[in-house]
Amino acid sequence: MPTPHQTPIPTQWVGPIHIIGNAINDEVRVPLATYETPLWPSTGRGAKISRLCGGIRATVVDERMTRSIVLEAANAQEAYDALQAIQGNQALYTEAVAETSRFARLLDMHSQIVGNLLFLRFECATGDASGHNMVTKAADALIALILERHPELGYGSISGNYCIDKKASAVNGILGRGKNVVAEITIPREICEKRLRTTPEKMLTLNTRKNHIGSNIAGSLRSANAHFANMLLAFYLATGQDAANIIEGSQGIVHTEIRDDALYFSCTLPNLIVGTVGNGKGQGLEIVEDHLTELGCREAREPGANARRLAAICAATVLCGELSLLAAQTNPGELMRSHIAMERHG
Amino acid sequence: MPTPHQTPIPTQWVGPIHIIGNAINDEVRVPLATYETPLWPSTGRGAKISRLCGGIRATVVDERMTRSIVLEAANAQEAYDALQAIQGNQALYTEAVAETSRFARLLDMHSQIVGNLLFLRFECATGDASGHNMVTKAADALIALILERHPELGYGSISGNYCIDKKASAVNGILGRGKNVVAEITIPREICEKRLRTTPEKMLTLNTRKNHIGSNIAGSLRSANAHFANMLLAFYLATGQDAANIIEGSQGIVHTEIRDDALYFSCTLPNLIVGTVGNGKGQGLEIVEDHLTELGCREAREPGANARRLAAICAATVLCGELSLLAAQTNPGELMRSHIAMERHG
Amino acid sequence: MPTPHQTPIPTQWVGPIHIIGNAINDEVRVPLATYETPLWPSTGRGAKISRLCGGIRATVVDERMTRSIVLEAANAQEAYDALQAIQGNQALYTEAVAETSRFARLLDMHSQIVGNLLFLRFECATGDASGHNMVTKAADALIALILERHPELGYGSISGNYCIDKKASAVNGILGRGKNVVAEITIPREICEKRLRTTPEKMLTLNTRKNHIGSNIAGSLRSANAHFANMLLAFYLATGQDAANIIEGSQGIVHTEIRDDALYFSCTLPNLIVGTVGNGKGQGLEIVEDHLTELGCREAREPGANARRLAAICAATVLCGELSLLAAQTNPGELMRSHIAMERHG
Amino acid sequence: MPTPHQTPIPTQWVGPIHIIGNAINDEVRVPLATYETPLWPSTGRGAKISRLCGGIRATVVDERMTRSIVLEAANAQEAYDALQAIQGNQALYTEAVAETSRFARLLDMHSQIVGNLLFLRFECATGDASGHNMVTKAADALIALILERHPELGYGSISGNYCIDKKASAVNGILGRGKNVVAEITIPREICEKRLRTTPEKMLTLNTRKNHIGSNIAGSLRSANAHFANMLLAFYLATGQDAANIIEGSQGIVHTEIRDDALYFSCTLPNLIVGTVGNGKGQGLEIVEDHLTELGCREAREPGANARRLAAICAATVLCGELSLLAAQTNPGELMRSHIAMERHG
Repeated sequence: MPTPHQTPIPTQWVGPIHIIGNAINDEVRVPLATYETPLWPSTGRGAKISRLCGGIRATVVDERMTRSIVLEAANAQEAYDALQAIQGNQALYTEAVAETSRFARLLDMHSQIVGNLLFLRFECATGDASGHNMVTKAADALIALILERHPELGYGSISGNYCIDKKASAVNGILGRGKNVVAEITIPREICEKRLRTTPEKMLTLNTRKNHIGSNIAGSLRSANAHFANMLLAFYLATGQDAANIIEGSQGIVHTEIRDDALYFSCTLPNLIVGTVGNGKGQGLEIVEDHLTELGCREAREPGANARRLAAICAATVLCGELSLLAAQTNPGELMRSHIAMERHG
Repeated sequence: MPTPHQTPIPTQWVGPIHIIGNAINDEVRVPLATYETPLWPSTGRGAKISRLCGGIRATVVDERMTRSIVLEAANAQEAYDALQAIQGNQALYTEAVAETSRFARLLDMHSQIVGNLLFLRFECATGDASGHNMVTKAADALIALILERHPELGYGSISGNYCIDKKASAVNGILGRGKNVVAEITIPREICEKRLRTTPEKMLTLNTRKNHIGSNIAGSLRSANAHFANMLLAFYLATGQDAANIIEGSQGIVHTEIRDDALYFSCTLPNLIVGTVGNGKGQGLEIVEDHLTELGCREAREPGANARRLAAICAATVLCGELSLLAAQTNPGELMRSHIAMERHG
Repeated sequence: MPTPHQTPIPTQWVGPIHIIGNAINDEVRVPLATYETPLWPSTGRGAKISRLCGGIRATVVDERMTRSIVLEAANAQEAYDALQAIQGNQALYTEAVAETSRFARLLDMHSQIVGNLLFLRFECATGDASGHNMVTKAADALIALILERHPELGYGSISGNYCIDKKASAVNGILGRGKNVVAEITIPREICEKRLRTTPEKMLTLNTRKNHIGSNIAGSLRSANAHFANMLLAFYLATGQDAANIIEGSQGIVHTEIRDDALYFSCTLPNLIVGTVGNGKGQGLEIVEDHLTELGCREAREPGANARRLAAICAATVLCGELSLLAAQTNPGELMRSHIAMERHG
Repeated sequence: MPTPHQTPIPTQWVGPIHIIGNAINDEVRVPLATYETPLWPSTGRGAKISRLCGGIRATVVDERMTRSIVLEAANAQEAYDALQAIQGNQALYTEAVAETSRFARLLDMHSQIVGNLLFLRFECATGDASGHNMVTKAADALIALILERHPELGYGSISGNYCIDKKASAVNGILGRGKNVVAEITIPREICEKRLRTTPEKMLTLNTRKNHIGSNIAGSLRSANAHFANMLLAFYLATGQDAANIIEGSQGIVHTEIRDDALYFSCTLPNLIVGTVGNGKGQGLEIVEDHLTELGCREAREPGANARRLAAICAATVLCGELSLLAAQTNPGELMRSHIAMERHG
């Protein structure tokens, strides 16, 4: 095989973003790697707002990584009996997971029976890693243990797509996969008008029409936003993440309210799959290392704290870009004008 | 703002892949830019199969780029009346689109009325560009023209999310967005066994259980595959695409049959959003240029032909990676073993 | 087989509802057949509002009935070639449809290619019938004609589920199936407060939180409403419809605005599958006949006009029930209290 | 208000169906109330198969009824803190539910945080009732208790659509709502050919193409079947159920295999919302009472056992109708011929 080379993605530091909450209280500049360079000034405009309004509150409300397996039984009754036995032996399986890694811990297990097929979805804590490989290793051990104890079951697949990795679905939002983070900000009317050339009312109306009704008629799934995906891609690439996980990442919701003449603006991101160790980090990828260090995600903290900090920064970055684009779209012609301007100037 | 720098993504040439069909008949090596380096040998295994089995047939069946706008009326009746007038004047709007760009051509228009809101989805041919900016520019012109002719309507948004860009939805698969490509191959039993360590029957069973039933219970949307997203991300990054479009790209289907003791294996990718000119190409991104040139997508051809060639190569690449992973998952333990092996050796 | 008997469903006339628009301008009482008898006074409350506020505007914006077939080809290229030939011969197929029935008229045809499979979705006007059998008959003729002209294709199924009948999907909302009707009303603040014990603001907030955000996180599909299904079921049963079509019928959207201190409240119902002739009507079902006659849907009108009138009445009925329930849910405890009260009294 | 009258739905006893499993081992005739009378002989054909093949195995794998509420907080952190406190006090809330009814028992609670909104989904055992009112009453008590203990929260809605009732969604299939039942049968090739005029291979191919791929491209959600809804509607009406729940009921999966030259055919129905007591039963609805009695669902059994028996019969009935229609669709022209024949003969 030929020697690997490198595809260089244009990268810019944006911010700083002011972020508060249960995982970080800081001002951080954020690296965004993207071919879509207008994203930089646009996200930068949101960052500016964060500094003017007391910060973006980022709340991490859940974290877990998942892998599902599929097993076959003779019929649904046998699948059901096996499921009950497995659920009754949770301690055994929890221990088996713990043996596969220092950080993997079985949090929960969900199941589905379809005909004679038994799907088991394992949900694990995975420390500072995003955890893809950790849960695969855990599932590998679990499948062996289950088949050994249940000779009436047969191997179906190490991955049964009820996990579900990198596909548009509802299960990840409902049962959890990755970090679940809510980013919020409250922006006084004056700042809306002066800095975003819009009003709280216009933002509310646009969010309803575009993100909620427009997405609805498009037959979208848990995706009431304008362009979460753009910020996620740029952030994931710059920080060494498996960026194909922007697929579930893109499935989030913008919710706005008007409060005391100010705009309450929130981005809910239930499926941020990020880590500060593992694939894409280390191993000669110095620039990724530098980015993570600069973000303050290389500190000595309890396991998981660096990854939660990274997830909170990621959610705040998404909010900055989402806020800026929506504000632009409240005004006819502004989107196109700013695209042209940005391309002209670089 | 600080000077942009670059995030280098590890990149490897994979293949060559043997591809036949209505957009390319060639053997091509394919660059894949990814942090997930086990993707290289895995996709390479699929490429080997393509050379042993007479090639992957890639058929481009549609191409278009879309942008939707949202307008407000007093009520549904007024929205409906305006819609009928607009539909009755299609030639006028077609001309307006043509004036915005040398390559943009209005192909079709779809609509939705929700209460007093009118959503219009413009669908354009965009030559060799993926067309995001081209359709935005066209929509900008159309919105101005419509509002001028219909003072009873008001501006809602330049993008109404019925387009829909980079979000998990059904509309893009149903009405079309990007290149719609089907990649197919027929693999004799002997090659299945020797090269993929599996059988046609095992592949059929796994595809049903995992890609169809597993995705179904996950509440997925038009997404019956294992990991289209991984190959798409790596291919998009290496060829200068807006890789956030892997979201709609990931929504595709694997369909398999057993024919004369051989495995018929197909990947249907209705939403490949790729171009050979525009953002991410040119402008000092020499490596992207080299990749496109090497892929044979920089030749003097009729407008659109280079982009169709690129889409066909992309679909064939997805097939290679999908085939290889599914084959591995038919065997207990193989996925984990190969992951470990690949990480060990690089 | 034993002689059929009858299951009697409790039925009540509700209203009159005041309705205006492009299919009806009238006050009509509406029969609702349901075991859930609290639906009667609840919908009746909405009907009262319709009479106080100048009527519910019901706008029919589309009508069609669909059936999809699936055919097999050797590969995608052959499927694509056949598709292009079929599309190029639309006149021939239009004529073939016209020969199967006095009322069936081919309006449009959509397609999907998946691997070697060709799905064709035929869309027909069907006069005053809901049209299930008419399109099946048309599809039967088309399939025979296509297979005769395209020996390279094979029969897959007379129904390929891309129609799609009585299943939760996006395609019917996007491409149309049944009558597409928007019902709207504007309610002054005073009437909101006095008759519905709520305010425009409370209704807007509840609609956003429950119908849009709540449905979104439930992983719902084009379903931003509280209980369209309840009114649809009762209306369909009382008027002899195939009530299993409430499944696509339930997939609709409530959109609200505040205008000049009044509540704008709309229900968009893209998939009302109703008819005034055909199955469930006539044939000894005198009560259904009486209901249709009383609704004014048995008049001598141009083909389709009676069915459009029925669809508009249906949409207005849905609005009445939806409005009333949502208003109740803006107040803590009111739903439970009214349920208890209604059960006590009847 | 005028006196209620009745809409009589044509009803026929079909069967007997031979059913085995964890909720019933019996042969039962089943009443089907429908305007679509071809459903009777079609389902009857499936019933005949059940008697020839040793019965349909119906396995009840779960049961619960749900109601979600939505509460507002100042921000996501407050919502999250409240959620943790509520989860830490589960015993208190379990007790509160138990006080609202003799049969209601809190099984589980799921949550979602969107911006500053907290959605709680309560899942209860409800004895022999389908449980709509029981969970509303429980939710009413819980909302009062939570607001009393958490003055930092405000009332949003007694129903937040994360329940979700009578709407197309993914949450009910994933988290459970109603009875989850799998019905299965194994049919020797000879019986396939003689009684269903088809083969195991044809059935497998049709199920893949139509129910899985066709539904997939329609953008359907957890709905891989042909017409579950038809049998559900007829069964629900005849047994006094709230038939609008066919919406979630219709979201089920047909899975087939070929085993030892026989056809394994299964219908998985995760959301059967049925009860043997409550609304639609008793109260002068003698025919419904007769139907339930004849089905053996009025016996003195432990709470819940009659309802589980009813759910198992329902699932077996669905299988009978699904099997028969799919078999007909494997043959060109058969569907139309049998429709015509049945209408002619009544």
